[in-house]
Amino acid sequence: MSSSFGNSIKVQIFGQSHSEGLGVVIDGLPAGVQLDMQEILRQMARRAPGQGDYTTKRRESDQPRILSGLVDGKSCGAPLCAVFENTDTRSKDYAALRDLPRPAHADYPAAVKTGGSNDIRGGGHFSARLTAPLVFAGAVCAQLLARRGVYVGAHIASIAGIQDQAYDPVALDARTLRAAADNGFPVLDLEAGEEMRRAIAQAASELDSVGGVVECGITGLPVGLGEPIFDGLENRIAAAVFGIPAVKGIEFGAGFAASGMRGSENNDPFYYDGEGRVRTETNNHGGILGGLASGMPVVFRAAFKPTPSIARPQRTVNLRTGLSEELVIHGRHDPCVVPRAVPCVEAAAAVAVYDLMHGVGLG
Amino acid sequence: MSSSFGNSIKVQIFGQSHSEGLGVVIDGLPAGVQLDMQEILRQMARRAPGQGDYTTKRRESDQPRILSGLVDGKSCGAPLCAVFENTDTRSKDYAALRDLPRPAHADYPAAVKTGGSNDIRGGGHFSARLTAPLVFAGAVCAQLLARRGVYVGAHIASIAGIQDQAYDPVALDARTLRAAADNGFPVLDLEAGEEMRRAIAQAASELDSVGGVVECGITGLPVGLGEPIFDGLENRIAAAVFGIPAVKGIEFGAGFAASGMRGSENNDPFYYDGEGRVRTETNNHGGILGGLASGMPVVFRAAFKPTPSIARPQRTVNLRTGLSEELVIHGRHDPCVVPRAVPCVEAAAAVAVYDLMHGVGLG
Amino acid sequence: MSSSFGNSIKVQIFGQSHSEGLGVVIDGLPAGVQLDMQEILRQMARRAPGQGDYTTKRRESDQPRILSGLVDGKSCGAPLCAVFENTDTRSKDYAALRDLPRPAHADYPAAVKTGGSNDIRGGGHFSARLTAPLVFAGAVCAQLLARRGVYVGAHIASIAGIQDQAYDPVALDARTLRAAADNGFPVLDLEAGEEMRRAIAQAASELDSVGGVVECGITGLPVGLGEPIFDGLENRIAAAVFGIPAVKGIEFGAGFAASGMRGSENNDPFYYDGEGRVRTETNNHGGILGGLASGMPVVFRAAFKPTPSIARPQRTVNLRTGLSEELVIHGRHDPCVVPRAVPCVEAAAAVAVYDLMHGVGLG
Amino acid sequence: MSSSFGNSIKVQIFGQSHSEGLGVVIDGLPAGVQLDMQEILRQMARRAPGQGDYTTKRRESDQPRILSGLVDGKSCGAPLCAVFENTDTRSKDYAALRDLPRPAHADYPAAVKTGGSNDIRGGGHFSARLTAPLVFAGAVCAQLLARRGVYVGAHIASIAGIQDQAYDPVALDARTLRAAADNGFPVLDLEAGEEMRRAIAQAASELDSVGGVVECGITGLPVGLGEPIFDGLENRIAAAVFGIPAVKGIEFGAGFAASGMRGSENNDPFYYDGEGRVRTETNNHGGILGGLASGMPVVFRAAFKPTPSIARPQRTVNLRTGLSEELVIHGRHDPCVVPRAVPCVEAAAAVAVYDLMHGVGLG
Repeated sequence: MSSSFGNSIKVQIFGQSHSEGLGVVIDGLPAGVQLDMQEILRQMARRAPGQGDYTTKRRESDQPRILSGLVDGKSCGAPLCAVFENTDTRSKDYAALRDLPRPAHADYPAAVKTGGSNDIRGGGHFSARLTAPLVFAGAVCAQLLARRGVYVGAHIASIAGIQDQAYDPVALDARTLRAAADNGFPVLDLEAGEEMRRAIAQAASELDSVGGVVECGITGLPVGLGEPIFDGLENRIAAAVFGIPAVKGIEFGAGFAASGMRGSENNDPFYYDGEGRVRTETNNHGGILGGLASGMPVVFRAAFKPTPSIARPQRTVNLRTGLSEELVIHGRHDPCVVPRAVPCVEAAAAVAVYDLMHGVGLG
Repeated sequence: MSSSFGNSIKVQIFGQSHSEGLGVVIDGLPAGVQLDMQEILRQMARRAPGQGDYTTKRRESDQPRILSGLVDGKSCGAPLCAVFENTDTRSKDYAALRDLPRPAHADYPAAVKTGGSNDIRGGGHFSARLTAPLVFAGAVCAQLLARRGVYVGAHIASIAGIQDQAYDPVALDARTLRAAADNGFPVLDLEAGEEMRRAIAQAASELDSVGGVVECGITGLPVGLGEPIFDGLENRIAAAVFGIPAVKGIEFGAGFAASGMRGSENNDPFYYDGEGRVRTETNNHGGILGGLASGMPVVFRAAFKPTPSIARPQRTVNLRTGLSEELVIHGRHDPCVVPRAVPCVEAAAAVAVYDLMHGVGLG
Repeated sequence: MSSSFGNSIKVQIFGQSHSEGLGVVIDGLPAGVQLDMQEILRQMARRAPGQGDYTTKRRESDQPRILSGLVDGKSCGAPLCAVFENTDTRSKDYAALRDLPRPAHADYPAAVKTGGSNDIRGGGHFSARLTAPLVFAGAVCAQLLARRGVYVGAHIASIAGIQDQAYDPVALDARTLRAAADNGFPVLDLEAGEEMRRAIAQAASELDSVGGVVECGITGLPVGLGEPIFDGLENRIAAAVFGIPAVKGIEFGAGFAASGMRGSENNDPFYYDGEGRVRTETNNHGGILGGLASGMPVVFRAAFKPTPSIARPQRTVNLRTGLSEELVIHGRHDPCVVPRAVPCVEAAAAVAVYDLMHGVGLG
Repeated sequence: MSSSFGNSIKVQIFGQSHSEGLGVVIDGLPAGVQLDMQEILRQMARRAPGQGDYTTKRRESDQPRILSGLVDGKSCGAPLCAVFENTDTRSKDYAALRDLPRPAHADYPAAVKTGGSNDIRGGGHFSARLTAPLVFAGAVCAQLLARRGVYVGAHIASIAGIQDQAYDPVALDARTLRAAADNGFPVLDLEAGEEMRRAIAQAASELDSVGGVVECGITGLPVGLGEPIFDGLENRIAAAVFGIPAVKGIEFGAGFAASGMRGSENNDPFYYDGEGRVRTETNNHGGILGGLASGMPVVFRAAFKPTPSIARPQRTVNLRTGLSEELVIHGRHDPCVVPRAVPCVEAAAAVAVYDLMHGVGLG
């Protein structure tokens, strides 16, 4: 495993779904920053389960315990360690899974990789539970970014094919980035949100699940941020976002749609706005040119596959007997991970971007 | 800049489009491997310009000069350095571009980042010319992977919306991975290829450009390869592929389409094949589960925007005068980068995968 | 701060002397290894305070709590996190130190580095308390190394100028490496040990402290281990050992003495032993040639300055008033850190060497 | 091999003693810096052979050819690549060495490591010739450091036991740091220098060699520089300096001598100088406390073993026949590497320190 991220800071995640604790160490933070712990808890709450009909009934402790790195809430320069204790875990639900790998889960390759020693309980280190420390780290980085005028936000772009209103990639601002979070169910268009919830409920009632897309925006990045060839904004954001379970694709700006455009259509003309700033009329480039921030809002989308754990019987193999078998997954699972994935995508983006800022003395 | 890639090997790319030389240092290669230099040159030739009506008329030296790391063609354990000399460069074409950033190019953010000191000639370090050392490094890694039974190949999935036949993600094998390269114009369906070439020619005749998608496959990966959370196969391949200019999106397996599926549809059932191997009936997961190789072929697609350099007049800003201005780009530019991007995508994938293999003692 | 070590594994240390907890995350361990926790506790006990007249009266909890990474004592492939809770801390002892930096401590530069936000309690992140997680990590790595026939041991080479018998660098074996640890006070020559203890007691009675040298040996390394130029055995061991507080020098083999030798004297002749193994007649090279393991025992020495915290009045500055002042340090401090530093040096060496082994697939 | 150094910049060295070329890529340099190439060549000349009776007769090209990274002598932000061509190489001198490893050289472990594929010519990648690119990189970093008021200098502390005058660790300033370089033979005390040269000549006449110690100083470091636990000044300088062939020890400040001191003697009292700066009355800590720069001059010493290549017959093994054999080394070898090592130590220190400065936005 390699659950460490960052070139100038180090974000080290640890834990398994049902281990005694899980958490994160953030090394390299600036000293002397008063962290707003209430705001961090608010971000944790957005990811926490049990918020509505679309989330798992499982109750997790999303209360971080700060072991080190803060003195009276202020960073002291030493690595910050936050731990989440695991309390409500039902390990017995998963016992049979060692023999029967769940389709679309990491069970099978993890068993091969570890010679059968992986922690099978709740998906172990591959569980979406591990996004709790990621969201914690992201919330810390977001506070540090805000001090530089950089804001990160996201919303559900689609669930089960139902589209939310898209960000306006030219006019996107910090207020809009906060809007979805303020809406509870993180969409811009509340009616679309209602329709999504119905689609989730429908899938759940059919013992099935749905996927979706999260759209994320970042404003206020200093022009030129990014370290191409291999540490450009796209490389780094992608490397972080693929750390979220169930992500199967990412695109920046016009993304895959740009592949069907003509250059004359896709190229975003430059102009001077009234205040002497260089801007582009359109933003097909998603705020990134050559891996560098162009000064326009960064916009990207991450595709999430449907929750793999569904209650319907599924075909799988029995690794012990060598025979095919039918598997029925019990336990508590979100019929759709996308709403809770929204703060995770923000967190991954915040960590990636803050790491780049920090690396050029802007963190 | 950070033009170094790799956790267990180090691939350090250097050079600018019109600098005296450009190249790559590969540190950490195993000693005692006889490299097939002819095969490397064959890969370089696939990327080289001047192959047909769709590529730039500029002639580049794609002949690597090996400064170190090989003794009688065999790796000696010391870093391998390959240099490409720059000979046919017309720097004067680009002189005016310091004031007039080209739309959809890195010119503007690079100028801000460097305080105006970036090498503007031919796009400098952001030029697609820098994919020459990448393809060299990829060709070296591909030979090392082949010794482990791992094969990488790619083809044009689409240009200007015209689709090539897709890889069969279940049946994909090494022979199919080689097929597109053998076809010259790297498609599986030669008729679709002809149509693509006509679309490229049409765009060129209209002083315009087109984009496209490259599909890449990898077979033979050991089950379990990948180091989640942040160094899983998807994280690492994405981090490398976004190092290729013009890439704006990447998706694995069903990718964005998976976001619209039900779990019951997307989940790939496991079964035992006749020889006791675990396989999946479908391959929506693109050979990657939880960031780990599942044993099924890895399949991913990278979206390329249309060539930003078009001959039509474009609106831009004059950074010296602070006024808007019209820009006409002269010089030699591909109306479509996608055909030459095919070996670049293979190279990025080969480097990323070999780095992971090497890190677990399989390189 | 950058309290992370390792190129192929990641050892991330966190905590401050008086923070709620401190600990370590070890990422990249092989799965399926049953760790001998009793052996780990034995190593922790060697570092723990309160063992004799020469150590601090402070009682620390050196009981690691394993939050993650083990299932039934066996590594599961996920990062291993061990936490030490802080219980018996007397923070009030240190309150005045914010104004009055202790001579030979990190107080002053740490205050400047952090703008006064460093955790001053007990030295914060600079405390020797932070060697507890290091010894834990070293004990884990030592168990993994032992499976490969690699053994690490150390002893006090000198305290206050009193010399222990030196290792025989040619004949050194695993049994000798264990000898000092078995002796309680970690020396080879028990009489010399008695004399050292008297010197420590004498210094303590004079409100003073003494330093010393630790000699460390490593046997069983595979010939060729090490990754020069910059990740050779010497570079890596030095980089780890200087992470132990109070270390001011390191030398390998004949070390500084070699600088006064003739080549004809220093060069170690090769010969074949009876079993076809290449060995050297002498071992001035300390088992390392060109940064690579030669197959002879690795031997190095680390110099420790005397404990900076002494009870005598000392001159310092008052950072608040800008005046010179006299400082009297209260509290509980070892008059000599060297005996407890012995397992720390072993741990640093074990981590550095295991990281190199792991990187070539031997971990 | 791992010939890359740096956490925030990347210094990648490549080449073998007799390969077609050798050199260095420096990635991450700030853009817009006009490099003084004459000054770089002056530094290269200090390391170059053929300067006097004590250096090899071999003539090497120490003329760097800049392939990339500079435009009109000014850094453009892209990686800087400098290449040294190899011209005067006599490979035949070394042919027999594949069977007969030279005592105190890397030949034997390198052969085992690479399965016999290492480049044996002139020591291959282990040759002191590889310090040419290191000195180049150091000269670049030194220029960048000078812009921040940081200066690095070194001198011969001893050769064959003959002592030069030591640096005054309290009063050391930039002028003194330059003094040795200006003296040609890099000592402070010219008479001691004469004596050293006689000792070298004497050893050479006896077909033998001598070693020595280099003392290095750094002034002007910002208080607090360094990233403990594992990237403190001592860790990083040591990691770089052990990249120079023949270094077997390093000590900071009082170093090994501190191990014999009492705390009351070793602790350096703080005081305010007339201009409100905190200083210490003595400097046993060598300008480093807890891995951080204290504001006092950094002083360290590196021990060099005597040149391993001596003309006397030596005992070794024949790896082909499995028999013991006598070896006579022909060719041109320095009877003492220490004078030419002085700029190498400066270079290693400059690279290590600049990397830390760059990492906190001061580069």
